[in-house]
Amino acid sequence: MAAEQDPEARAAARPLLTDLYQATMALGYWRAGRAREQAEFELFFRGCPFGGAFALAAGLRDCVRFLRAFRLRDADVQFLASVLPPDTDPAFFEHLRALDCSDVTVPLLQVSGPLLVVQLLETPLLCLVSYASLIATNAARLRLIAGPEKRLLEMGLRRAQGPDGGLTASTYSYLGGFDGSSNVLAGQLRGVPLAGTLAHSFVTSFSGTEVPPDPMLAPAASPGPRVDLTTRVEAWLDRVCAHLGLGVQEPHRGERAAFVAYALAFPQAFQGLLDTYSVQRSGLPNFLAVALALGELGYRAVGIRLDSGDLLQQAQEIRGVFRTVSARFQMPWLESISIAVSNNIDEKELARLAQEGSEVNVIGIGTNVVTCPRQPSLGCVYKLVSVGGQPRMKLTEDPEKQTLPGSKAAFRLLGPEGSLLLDVLQLAEEPPPQAGQELRVWPHGAREACTVRPAGVEPLLRLWVQQGQLCEPLPSLAESRAFAQLSLSRLSPEHKRLERPALYQVALSDKLRALVDRLGAGGSS
Amino acid sequence: MAAEQDPEARAAARPLLTDLYQATMALGYWRAGRAREQAEFELFFRGCPFGGAFALAAGLRDCVRFLRAFRLRDADVQFLASVLPPDTDPAFFEHLRALDCSDVTVPLLQVSGPLLVVQLLETPLLCLVSYASLIATNAARLRLIAGPEKRLLEMGLRRAQGPDGGLTASTYSYLGGFDGSSNVLAGQLRGVPLAGTLAHSFVTSFSGTEVPPDPMLAPAASPGPRVDLTTRVEAWLDRVCAHLGLGVQEPHRGERAAFVAYALAFPQAFQGLLDTYSVQRSGLPNFLAVALALGELGYRAVGIRLDSGDLLQQAQEIRGVFRTVSARFQMPWLESISIAVSNNIDEKELARLAQEGSEVNVIGIGTNVVTCPRQPSLGCVYKLVSVGGQPRMKLTEDPEKQTLPGSKAAFRLLGPEGSLLLDVLQLAEEPPPQAGQELRVWPHGAREACTVRPAGVEPLLRLWVQQGQLCEPLPSLAESRAFAQLSLSRLSPEHKRLERPALYQVALSDKLRALVDRLGAGGSS
Repeated sequence: MAAEQDPEARAAARPLLTDLYQATMALGYWRAGRAREQAEFELFFRGCPFGGAFALAAGLRDCVRFLRAFRLRDADVQFLASVLPPDTDPAFFEHLRALDCSDVTVPLLQVSGPLLVVQLLETPLLCLVSYASLIATNAARLRLIAGPEKRLLEMGLRRAQGPDGGLTASTYSYLGGFDGSSNVLAGQLRGVPLAGTLAHSFVTSFSGTEVPPDPMLAPAASPGPRVDLTTRVEAWLDRVCAHLGLGVQEPHRGERAAFVAYALAFPQAFQGLLDTYSVQRSGLPNFLAVALALGELGYRAVGIRLDSGDLLQQAQEIRGVFRTVSARFQMPWLESISIAVSNNIDEKELARLAQEGSEVNVIGIGTNVVTCPRQPSLGCVYKLVSVGGQPRMKLTEDPEKQTLPGSKAAFRLLGPEGSLLLDVLQLAEEPPPQAGQELRVWPHGAREACTVRPAGVEPLLRLWVQQGQLCEPLPSLAESRAFAQLSLSRLSPEHKRLERPALYQVALSDKLRALVDRLGAGGSS
Repeated sequence: MAAEQDPEARAAARPLLTDLYQATMALGYWRAGRAREQAEFELFFRGCPFGGAFALAAGLRDCVRFLRAFRLRDADVQFLASVLPPDTDPAFFEHLRALDCSDVTVPLLQVSGPLLVVQLLETPLLCLVSYASLIATNAARLRLIAGPEKRLLEMGLRRAQGPDGGLTASTYSYLGGFDGSSNVLAGQLRGVPLAGTLAHSFVTSFSGTEVPPDPMLAPAASPGPRVDLTTRVEAWLDRVCAHLGLGVQEPHRGERAAFVAYALAFPQAFQGLLDTYSVQRSGLPNFLAVALALGELGYRAVGIRLDSGDLLQQAQEIRGVFRTVSARFQMPWLESISIAVSNNIDEKELARLAQEGSEVNVIGIGTNVVTCPRQPSLGCVYKLVSVGGQPRMKLTEDPEKQTLPGSKAAFRLLGPEGSLLLDVLQLAEEPPPQAGQELRVWPHGAREACTVRPAGVEPLLRLWVQQGQLCEPLPSLAESRAFAQLSLSRLSPEHKRLERPALYQVALSDKLRALVDRLGAGGSS
């Protein structure tokens, strides 16, 4: 299986992006003659993050890309030889050189195949799924808080864990429900919609003494004569300041020069960043002068951005000014241009910005989406559940760390209206639950069984890779995003509640429960 | 300037790993005829992380690699063209195609050069420095808590923000004072020392019914006959169980088979993971049986690992057992083999494990070093301080977000014994402070000046890249690690205290302070 020749390939994990113990265990399995024994691992997490009752599982595409390209290069094998004992049998390294995932089968995310290779896959698969799922879930929570109307933009690249942390964050926050990202590479490699205009440095770089090489701008539609935008802006500034009761000297001329420069480059997409000096006394009148001068030429400014202070309060005030100015100067479109805000917005502040009557339209979030400060890691694990056809279970003294043994299937049981009742885990060999038939199950952690009669049954595991081959085309990122939103929409409000939600039930089948009991009591594990 | 052809090059940031507004501002600068105007940015952070009073600045190597390789490929320019206005002047894209960092000058991290290109560098440089410095500082704190003797291993790859988040974490936690990492790629690409042995899945994959293809092991040194290790281990198990007062059926036979398999693969480096079933009743006796059988053949087991329960308490108990067993069976080396622990260790638990008398030797930390949960982002910024030779200052209504204008130099003032007095920021044009000469400075945030007479003066900024060329060889990772530890050793204990430390003083020169006052009052910014 060759690596796909797509531009994304570079971003995939490499086989040596793994913990050393995977390689030492590989040698152990090989020395024990068990390298090709059939084994199955499950990748899962034990609790939903952020105190919530749901999580989005994400990272499938990256995992599949990684699996299909999985091949140790000569340099990789040589490096492993340098960190393993010098007297290691050279045949082991030949085994590694020949290794690929052509015998590996993966529904997301059960991984079955030869023991040595499915063990080696542990760390990179965890690395690809864990953070992707965490940030997709974080983004989904933020979307739930913001509601469907607000435009949410991820802009946390500079706060991410290095280059690829940023790429992962931008990709999966989009999947989780954001509308776009500032990260250009995520746009280029993953097709994430992009957004971005200007920073404070652009504004402070202008003093107002600069002379644009070409201040002339043609009207938007008609073939009329080009006009000097700088001159028009100064004329509009007089009128705006008179209307706002400001002295015409108050607005910073460097800031205005910056706005004019940006407008000359982006007449169709002019946006102002208002808080470099003073929003009310400088940023707002300068923006209005440029927006009105553009409006006169038939261009409509896109909106403004605020990056400090009380964002909600300022948005309300600015919308008020837009209303009076648009009426005063008969530019009705100006009333409803977009107000974008940013500056360390977290769940609480987002709720405030999204409250009824808020005039904020676009919300940029960086640190608080990318770093998931409330829970910066998901705690995914990858556990052996079966080897050589026999179920395996980790029976530690810490009951939290026990695993569910055996190769499994998972089903979602539905109520009459398609509502979600609960999910059932059962052994792979059991027949699937049937709609309309009563079923006895053991809610996870409970001591008593209960019965349920589902109106519908959906299988949850889907086979993506069989014997190393992709079984069906992977969904696009936009399709995955739509699927995530659809799944969330089916979850009831009490499970979607972000604080103290009702827990969604996961139950075990009779047979799985019996196997847990048998192995837990020490019966042939 | 071509990209270096080293295996690391792949991991460097690419030019499009940036926020879209850098590209829109580039067009704005270009349209304003200012693309080549000389400008200077400073990259810095406003507060030390984790409530401490120090931070390690890290990421130089990645930044230099990025700068030297900085070049927009055709596909990059085409992608930018697709997200910029369709009527953008093609000459702008020609400018981008020709762009490199050959006019860029960088002491860490002042970045000066043509306005358009130094603006474009903002996001990737922030991305490369911010997390690197955060995790290096986090690692340094953990090293201070652990003391110099304990071996600290980073094992958080699976908790990182995707593949490169993990690589960055492993590299810079080593720089900050860890001894090594589990991340194989960090060993291959960055030379980080590696560590790793076996996981619970290796143990649970054995039931005890497996027959090793070759159970024979030769003695370590002498050319004596090979012996069947499995048989010897069973014989030793009888003696160990008798000594410990355990029934010989109690230790799990699958676990013992796993230990034997590992010992056959790594006779010189046998390590046991004791807590898959029960430490005292299974893991420990099984380990001892294998270690003693190996010992008989002249091999010395390396140690054990615990991954659950009260780690300190168990380490003390296990050391006690090692002492009696080593005496009882006359294997004195067994007494002092290494006890390694892991399992969600944070600063508090680390302090407990490092307390006097602790028998723990090696401490593996994952989530709590990699995700920096106490403060998952450093908040680095990159601010324009000068353009066209004129100082620039951001004068927002939020005083926290004001910047210090002008091209600057920085010096560390030393006391008589080489102790650190304070750091001084001054304008680049000012003469450096002189040892023995009195100096008037303004402690940052204070309203009164103070005088200081340093016994020594050290310049803090070092020129790494001039006109795009590397000025001196970059230090190796190990050299940077040693430098970081040396720098920390010079800091006084009250500044190194991890909770409520004394703040280390940073002061402004008279001239810089006057410039701040002048620009702050609105004088020609």
